[in-house]
Amino acid sequence: MRKRNVCVVITARPSYSRVKTALLAIREHPDLNLQLVVAASALLDRYGSVVKYIEEDGLEITRKIYTVLEGENLISMAKTTGIGISELASVFDDLKPDVVVTIADRYETISTAIAASYMNIPLAHIQGGEVTGNIDEKVRHAITKLSDIHLVTTPMAAERVIKMGENPDSVYVTGCPSIDLAAEVKANPVLDFDPIKKYGGVGADIIIEPGKYLVVMQHPVTTSHEHAQEEINATLNAILELDMPTMLFWPNVDAGSDGTSRAIRIFRERNRSNKVHFFKNMKGTDFLRILSNSLCLIGNSSVGIRECSYLGVPVVNLGNRQNRRDRGANVLDVPYDKDAIIAAVRQQMGQGQFKSSFLYGDGNAGKCIADVLAVAKLGIEKVLMY
Amino acid sequence: MRKRNVCVVITARPSYSRVKTALLAIREHPDLNLQLVVAASALLDRYGSVVKYIEEDGLEITRKIYTVLEGENLISMAKTTGIGISELASVFDDLKPDVVVTIADRYETISTAIAASYMNIPLAHIQGGEVTGNIDEKVRHAITKLSDIHLVTTPMAAERVIKMGENPDSVYVTGCPSIDLAAEVKANPVLDFDPIKKYGGVGADIIIEPGKYLVVMQHPVTTSHEHAQEEINATLNAILELDMPTMLFWPNVDAGSDGTSRAIRIFRERNRSNKVHFFKNMKGTDFLRILSNSLCLIGNSSVGIRECSYLGVPVVNLGNRQNRRDRGANVLDVPYDKDAIIAAVRQQMGQGQFKSSFLYGDGNAGKCIADVLAVAKLGIEKVLMY
Amino acid sequence: MRKRNVCVVITARPSYSRVKTALLAIREHPDLNLQLVVAASALLDRYGSVVKYIEEDGLEITRKIYTVLEGENLISMAKTTGIGISELASVFDDLKPDVVVTIADRYETISTAIAASYMNIPLAHIQGGEVTGNIDEKVRHAITKLSDIHLVTTPMAAERVIKMGENPDSVYVTGCPSIDLAAEVKANPVLDFDPIKKYGGVGADIIIEPGKYLVVMQHPVTTSHEHAQEEINATLNAILELDMPTMLFWPNVDAGSDGTSRAIRIFRERNRSNKVHFFKNMKGTDFLRILSNSLCLIGNSSVGIRECSYLGVPVVNLGNRQNRRDRGANVLDVPYDKDAIIAAVRQQMGQGQFKSSFLYGDGNAGKCIADVLAVAKLGIEKVLMY
Amino acid sequence: MRKRNVCVVITARPSYSRVKTALLAIREHPDLNLQLVVAASALLDRYGSVVKYIEEDGLEITRKIYTVLEGENLISMAKTTGIGISELASVFDDLKPDVVVTIADRYETISTAIAASYMNIPLAHIQGGEVTGNIDEKVRHAITKLSDIHLVTTPMAAERVIKMGENPDSVYVTGCPSIDLAAEVKANPVLDFDPIKKYGGVGADIIIEPGKYLVVMQHPVTTSHEHAQEEINATLNAILELDMPTMLFWPNVDAGSDGTSRAIRIFRERNRSNKVHFFKNMKGTDFLRILSNSLCLIGNSSVGIRECSYLGVPVVNLGNRQNRRDRGANVLDVPYDKDAIIAAVRQQMGQGQFKSSFLYGDGNAGKCIADVLAVAKLGIEKVLMY
Repeated sequence: MRKRNVCVVITARPSYSRVKTALLAIREHPDLNLQLVVAASALLDRYGSVVKYIEEDGLEITRKIYTVLEGENLISMAKTTGIGISELASVFDDLKPDVVVTIADRYETISTAIAASYMNIPLAHIQGGEVTGNIDEKVRHAITKLSDIHLVTTPMAAERVIKMGENPDSVYVTGCPSIDLAAEVKANPVLDFDPIKKYGGVGADIIIEPGKYLVVMQHPVTTSHEHAQEEINATLNAILELDMPTMLFWPNVDAGSDGTSRAIRIFRERNRSNKVHFFKNMKGTDFLRILSNSLCLIGNSSVGIRECSYLGVPVVNLGNRQNRRDRGANVLDVPYDKDAIIAAVRQQMGQGQFKSSFLYGDGNAGKCIADVLAVAKLGIEKVLMY
Repeated sequence: MRKRNVCVVITARPSYSRVKTALLAIREHPDLNLQLVVAASALLDRYGSVVKYIEEDGLEITRKIYTVLEGENLISMAKTTGIGISELASVFDDLKPDVVVTIADRYETISTAIAASYMNIPLAHIQGGEVTGNIDEKVRHAITKLSDIHLVTTPMAAERVIKMGENPDSVYVTGCPSIDLAAEVKANPVLDFDPIKKYGGVGADIIIEPGKYLVVMQHPVTTSHEHAQEEINATLNAILELDMPTMLFWPNVDAGSDGTSRAIRIFRERNRSNKVHFFKNMKGTDFLRILSNSLCLIGNSSVGIRECSYLGVPVVNLGNRQNRRDRGANVLDVPYDKDAIIAAVRQQMGQGQFKSSFLYGDGNAGKCIADVLAVAKLGIEKVLMY
Repeated sequence: MRKRNVCVVITARPSYSRVKTALLAIREHPDLNLQLVVAASALLDRYGSVVKYIEEDGLEITRKIYTVLEGENLISMAKTTGIGISELASVFDDLKPDVVVTIADRYETISTAIAASYMNIPLAHIQGGEVTGNIDEKVRHAITKLSDIHLVTTPMAAERVIKMGENPDSVYVTGCPSIDLAAEVKANPVLDFDPIKKYGGVGADIIIEPGKYLVVMQHPVTTSHEHAQEEINATLNAILELDMPTMLFWPNVDAGSDGTSRAIRIFRERNRSNKVHFFKNMKGTDFLRILSNSLCLIGNSSVGIRECSYLGVPVVNLGNRQNRRDRGANVLDVPYDKDAIIAAVRQQMGQGQFKSSFLYGDGNAGKCIADVLAVAKLGIEKVLMY
Repeated sequence: MRKRNVCVVITARPSYSRVKTALLAIREHPDLNLQLVVAASALLDRYGSVVKYIEEDGLEITRKIYTVLEGENLISMAKTTGIGISELASVFDDLKPDVVVTIADRYETISTAIAASYMNIPLAHIQGGEVTGNIDEKVRHAITKLSDIHLVTTPMAAERVIKMGENPDSVYVTGCPSIDLAAEVKANPVLDFDPIKKYGGVGADIIIEPGKYLVVMQHPVTTSHEHAQEEINATLNAILELDMPTMLFWPNVDAGSDGTSRAIRIFRERNRSNKVHFFKNMKGTDFLRILSNSLCLIGNSSVGIRECSYLGVPVVNLGNRQNRRDRGANVLDVPYDKDAIIAAVRQQMGQGQFKSSFLYGDGNAGKCIADVLAVAKLGIEKVLMY
């Protein structure tokens, strides 16, 4: 029997960490043939290209496609999406996949969903059915309506996908592959490398010791991109006042990332002699190891909701970016406000590590996804169930 | 108070008839300013450009944009969609609408939905919540998930949109504007023009008398475009055998329309001395008048399900293109099979006209849509209701 | 030694006939590997797809790319060119050619030239240095300035390319590959097939006997596309009055082809019982055989200037499309005027066949081009020679 | 009489300085109406957006269009060019200019030339006929062949354009508008602002006094983009050894700018306590004032060849980027080699200021260009003159 061609499209740095174990499991599966397409900001150096991590993990990249129209505003995001559809249509025409896999809900992932569904190729969606409360939610649920197979992370997500009218037979609760990595790290959480030596970055030459530093990862929020600068300043000023060794990670490409990045650069120029070191990107498991040994994660990244719940790391979650996501006891929600942030960080530091939660998976999601892709009925005809 | 800018995007011939009364009502509304964008196949002569009908109706076209990549296959459809997003993003950036309106479910309408929602412009969708059972259904429900205001045609459609997780406050049952035109025609159904004299077309010089002719309108079905030729041949051979004066309308652009069009052309060349006349396009009300005076409509157009239910015209509906749409008593469903078609047409001709059904509206949809657009709360933040 | 990868891009029906012998010679050459890309209108059925002729000739198509934006106006031509660059850049990135070959001067061929030169791939241009006197001339000479190797058809063309500042070492007089086919046909000019039986087409069922019919091939002229309709009408009315069996070929895609095509369709509908048969496309050598046995070619195609000079076929050349091309004694130039056309056709019919001219080559151009591509120094750095 | 609509397209920071006086003169001209389109890297913050300088100069921007596909490699440059054609076609269709003006020879300027010429709009080209010896030369001369009016800077350039076959009646020696600004500054060369206070930038807080600092401006060279890093390192190490106050300007977007920018960033991180301050962008006249008061300009910018010849500033010109440009006595050419650079800078510092040269204009180019655009015959039909 011919192997199924499974084409996975990675469009951003965080998406890779989020599916790495699924990619490895697909590659190992006897009935599957992995076609890996790397696109959009995942290729771009200034957002932290993931190409080298992919290659280090021994995966072969089938195609690289450039789709990001520069501008970092709403019009360039829309045009980037259009370009992505056009480019991916050529790629799918060439690779002839049996099923295409798209991940999560970033704006440009709908390009993958449209190109595949319009070319009559069955579409599998990882991480549908979640709720957050922003533009991502429109994208995520629209992709659900274009998808034929739903690989969801939690039972609540499965329930929502089915409520939206999808056939229950097409919905699989696999857990989140990002938790697979967290499980690996949790099994052996030693901080076995020097982050500054290994990853360079810029800023203060701080000492990073287990249990003695903070981590910051804050993304601009698309629908209020003009406020990006204010929002990151609240955090930066809180950090300054907390005066603890801090590892700060640059944000992803998005409308507004320019505001956020600029604010960070200005802060950096003005505050040379502080305790903050700035990183661009990091191998997924290294980043989890950093988190696992930190006092607290501050920001609005979904890593605080997902991986940290499994790792038991205290999180100060800012604003409404993760608004309605199902979350564990480790998350403390505060607004983009300096004083609130400081108080919350102090409370979390007092608390210490939390117990592991299996809300987002038990560590076998990657294998589970590969198994589903190998046996699921592949079709493109579907109807609303009501 | 500043008038709201309402930008309506028309991408195909049938969409225009379907919203004409809404466009007129928006233009007349004291609180609204109409921005009319004509795009894609709606501009192309060989699919029957609607530009002249729009101008005859006294509407001004704000922008014309060319987006159709030639090829009439799945890859060119996908790329057309990508080009559409890119072009519409520029147009929206320029026109700065307060709300964008997209219509129905053709593949390229998702370009409008993505461009608007990605640029943080509130999106209103006409004809969401319907069910049919083909690729259009993926597109239609995905657009629902990108939309902020839902202007639906039936209470059943409203129920489905709400079930999909949309806020009930954002769902309005307006009826279908196409029924407004049907109501006008129904009020005075006289066939007051000579179709061949007025619209030319090619083929036999048939006599078109009220109650003495058939109408054929058959579109290729996207997900089985290689069968388009067989499917239209069943109809053409049935027509030949029925040997009655017949008005046949060319199909729209779609993957497969090439197959359908080619089959029609071949049939035409081989059967010179028959009773079939071929039309490209017709003003909406003229077309309804033709239907209203016909013995029977044969094909798979939604006009048979909607307008004909109000007009009471017997319909022989082919295949699964209108699969699950709510329908009146006037519709007889048969497969793409010559003998089945002949039998069904004869049954419908024996039956005669049906009683009007108000399933798809009572004739005031256009005005109702304008009123909603004038008063509805315009926002872009929405969440799944469960 | 590794074979050189030679990537030839065909963008229109006539370009294929024009390089067929070069393609065959490249494929046969021990030091070359042919990469054949078919794009733009060359793929589209309604302009006469050349795909089947290519396949019949035993050539393998490496890539097909769709680039034609529908609209048949100046804006869609410009956008088609932009799309072509973007698509060809991906193709070149994938195929990694050592040299790219572009042909002649149609508007979309500059896409090939830009994609190749911007990607630092050496570019060879067939048919540079010719003069005609219209928009094509801008395109042709601009491509010369982007090209690294010039494969020209006549010594006069070589002289012009050198005058424009190109390095004489990069200019090769190869003759025109289209003459290779003409030479084959000239060697054995028997009309060995029934054109209507073999190619179908539409219109009158005329008898096509050697020396007893006319051929018409008229393209719209881009910079005056609104006059396309008038211009073709002059010809059609002349044909009607000449009342001889006539084979008419549909024009290529171009701004204005819609005007020309529509005028032909209208003429056809109105003049059913005449002596004209309409063809879409024909295998290159079959077409030359048709010409070789005709009384006269009427129109504005370059085939009248090139191939017909070798074949000795009388030509009535219309308007300024071939304005300044070097021409043989077989060409009679007249304006787009019915009476002038009739008089010229009668004069040419009285004259009979002309003697062969070797102005555009002696029948070995294809082989000569392959030899140049195998041995020429391949580089991308060049400077104006003055 | 209706004013002529003159549409000028600016695609990069340096192009603006180069035509500023022409823009002002067009705006002031009673017979002209300026349509100013800002596109490509001219809009992007990270290459130094010129939008604020344009607005400070009191010019109104008619349209902004985003066309840069991120990637900073050859494929993204090609695709950027394709996107530019497509976007500009829409803009020209909307603005209906009587003449379009394109400037110089950056890769993306051919988008302007193609969009205009393909839409039958007369095209004027500023700075044709120059010779440099790299990819820009292909672009520049190709644009000449697409242009209808040639506004050249020197008599030698005019001669070359005519030699290429252009009609002498269409060639005007106007001088270079950038010299107009140099003439203004030369008339009053006082350094009347504090560059760091006014423009920020990063790096050492150096003292910038007239006659006591160096200026560096080095662009990557497209056809050898992999060497960009080595080439800039030669300069950076020379600067380090010269140990003088130095103002360094970041390079433009281009394939390879990533290499250059990265090398500069690395240098900066490793050499905190040096005498180099880094600037992104500067108002044109401020930059000329900086040059005018400097000891020497080091790099490969054309500003060293043009403006500095008028200003009499000593220049150390690196590599072959300005290879064959006509140059004054102020330019010393050296390879990308640390020691050669150091020796040359020392020689130039010993020499002091040079006498003004009028090689590139006498200070009235802007007005002259406006006058030509107001009276030149506008047409699109042209032929090779031989």
